[in-house]
Amino acid sequence: MSRFAKKFLENMEPYTPGEQSDVPGLVKLNTNENPYPPAPGVRRAMAYWGTFRTQKPLNRYPDPSCGPLIKTLASYYNVEENMVAVGNGSDEILAFAYMAFGEKVICPKISYGFYPVFGEMFSGEVREIPLTKDFRIDPDDYADDEGTIIVANPNAPTGRDMGIEGIEKLLSYGRLVIVDEAYGDMGSESAVPLTGGYDNLLVVRTFSKGRSLAGMRVGYAIGHRELIEDINRIKFSFNPYSLDSVAMNAAVESVKDEKYFRETLDKIVRTRQWFAGEMEALGFEVLPSAANFVMTSGPVPGREYFEKLRERNILIRYFDKDPIRDYVRITIGTEDEMKKLLEATKEILNESR
Amino acid sequence: MSRFAKKFLENMEPYTPGEQSDVPGLVKLNTNENPYPPAPGVRRAMAYWGTFRTQKPLNRYPDPSCGPLIKTLASYYNVEENMVAVGNGSDEILAFAYMAFGEKVICPKISYGFYPVFGEMFSGEVREIPLTKDFRIDPDDYADDEGTIIVANPNAPTGRDMGIEGIEKLLSYGRLVIVDEAYGDMGSESAVPLTGGYDNLLVVRTFSKGRSLAGMRVGYAIGHRELIEDINRIKFSFNPYSLDSVAMNAAVESVKDEKYFRETLDKIVRTRQWFAGEMEALGFEVLPSAANFVMTSGPVPGREYFEKLRERNILIRYFDKDPIRDYVRITIGTEDEMKKLLEATKEILNESR
Repeated sequence: MSRFAKKFLENMEPYTPGEQSDVPGLVKLNTNENPYPPAPGVRRAMAYWGTFRTQKPLNRYPDPSCGPLIKTLASYYNVEENMVAVGNGSDEILAFAYMAFGEKVICPKISYGFYPVFGEMFSGEVREIPLTKDFRIDPDDYADDEGTIIVANPNAPTGRDMGIEGIEKLLSYGRLVIVDEAYGDMGSESAVPLTGGYDNLLVVRTFSKGRSLAGMRVGYAIGHRELIEDINRIKFSFNPYSLDSVAMNAAVESVKDEKYFRETLDKIVRTRQWFAGEMEALGFEVLPSAANFVMTSGPVPGREYFEKLRERNILIRYFDKDPIRDYVRITIGTEDEMKKLLEATKEILNESR
Repeated sequence: MSRFAKKFLENMEPYTPGEQSDVPGLVKLNTNENPYPPAPGVRRAMAYWGTFRTQKPLNRYPDPSCGPLIKTLASYYNVEENMVAVGNGSDEILAFAYMAFGEKVICPKISYGFYPVFGEMFSGEVREIPLTKDFRIDPDDYADDEGTIIVANPNAPTGRDMGIEGIEKLLSYGRLVIVDEAYGDMGSESAVPLTGGYDNLLVVRTFSKGRSLAGMRVGYAIGHRELIEDINRIKFSFNPYSLDSVAMNAAVESVKDEKYFRETLDKIVRTRQWFAGEMEALGFEVLPSAANFVMTSGPVPGREYFEKLRERNILIRYFDKDPIRDYVRITIGTEDEMKKLLEATKEILNESR
């Protein structure tokens, strides 16, 4: 730390991103990326950028209003354009939301690691509410308090879906509710259709998971016009051009191809179901998941399982903290990748017998 | 504003970005973009992204450590890698700097419009120090105070270069000095070589202007290891992946082609010198500029000149505030674009006679 740093920096614990490794042959199941490439239209768009004959060449600033992308999303979700804001990944959108709202923030204890980090930076107070024993978010636990509620649905790293009734229960308290649907494309019901009826709901989504665009950094929020105005007020005071021309274009092309999107998601959901069954057959407990990952615990302790897979060039995620210390989080890759992981798991189980 | 917004939002005045218009045939000289495309290597890299055969495909997260880009910049500037931080445009880097440092911030009054905006958001206090009558930043005016000093060199929208001795004078006060060299490629001396000798200097730069990559959003900071650590501490608590894979790659390719870079800059500098002479011949005062724009004032009042050019499909920038109300800022485009502007100017002068 430099002698010029503000005091709060000293105690700040930055979020630890999952390891990004480029080891050849690595089976990478640690950061919940989609194993399939983005839609073919994205590939064509990228190639076209290489011609430098685009309408908005790279030497020109991107459109700070992000017009075409906002139009595309509004039409896809059947909401007004002034109900959509876009940003550099859902992390930026979430950060803007903390900057705009939330003198006090309530979030589940065990959820996305950024919620308390943003809280330290932008909110006066963060209260973390433990999950139930079976790792659910119980909306009743959020009733007797004040402040902005933020939940991930499905939650991470548990994968559990709290159901749209759970979200409505949270909304009934009348406080601002931010629903982070980063993993909302793989089987849970989205809260977006509720945004027309509640002025206290902000749904945050991303192109990184379901839409295979983690490398391009595009996130968005859908909610009441006034909430979106507040987010944009922050955006235009912080980094108005945070979404580059190429990322915007890639996102628009992705939304155009609904068929490819659905096919990709179906593959992930089918692989998840099959994989969960296989793991259970090997003696693992697998939490019900509506996301592109599963949380599981089994005959081998979490850390040991993680380390032994790693020795075999398979990367999953281990969180060394209560109450998930006995578990690991495994991203759903291709069927082939999951088969490799299952084979390795059988070896590890045999070794430890 | 929503009923959930924090109070400070009410009084916050977001920065107004220059108009981004797509009118066909428009001569766009209002946002200081480079009129030339990025280096040919960038074009080849973009085309390669379109093959989806890249080492880091788009469905994978970017490298949050931004390794290759940091290596490239460290080697280009001949500094240690731990003296470089990168981000989503220099706006994001500047915002991170305000978040990390600067309980109190001192900046010139007339400079980049974001300095006081960031101040409102992240600093307790902002003090704006007027330019001299001839629009210079006088380092003596910054001696008797405390707090972080932030200056743009060359300054915008004036274009004036305060000289490296001026920067050293500011550094001699011992407080943190942030030098924004967004326009530092067109004739001013960079403060980067000073970073090895001062622990209170942070130089912020961008790929948007000199390197023709405004559409891709890449900025960076060079400074003492501890300052860079502080910036990264904020980055990893805010948006660790803010630089997407394609933008990082484009930036690396741009730095590789020094010859193209120098040729482009030479063209801009030559056009600027010739254009300034032509404007003076028409009776305009042109401030000495070390940037890719000039500030000028002439026989036609600023606003009228701006509006009449606009009627002719030529966009320049007018700031409706003291003490630059009589001036306009004109980006240096291609020679052909500047000729069109000169023709239109002659017409306007004839009309008003």
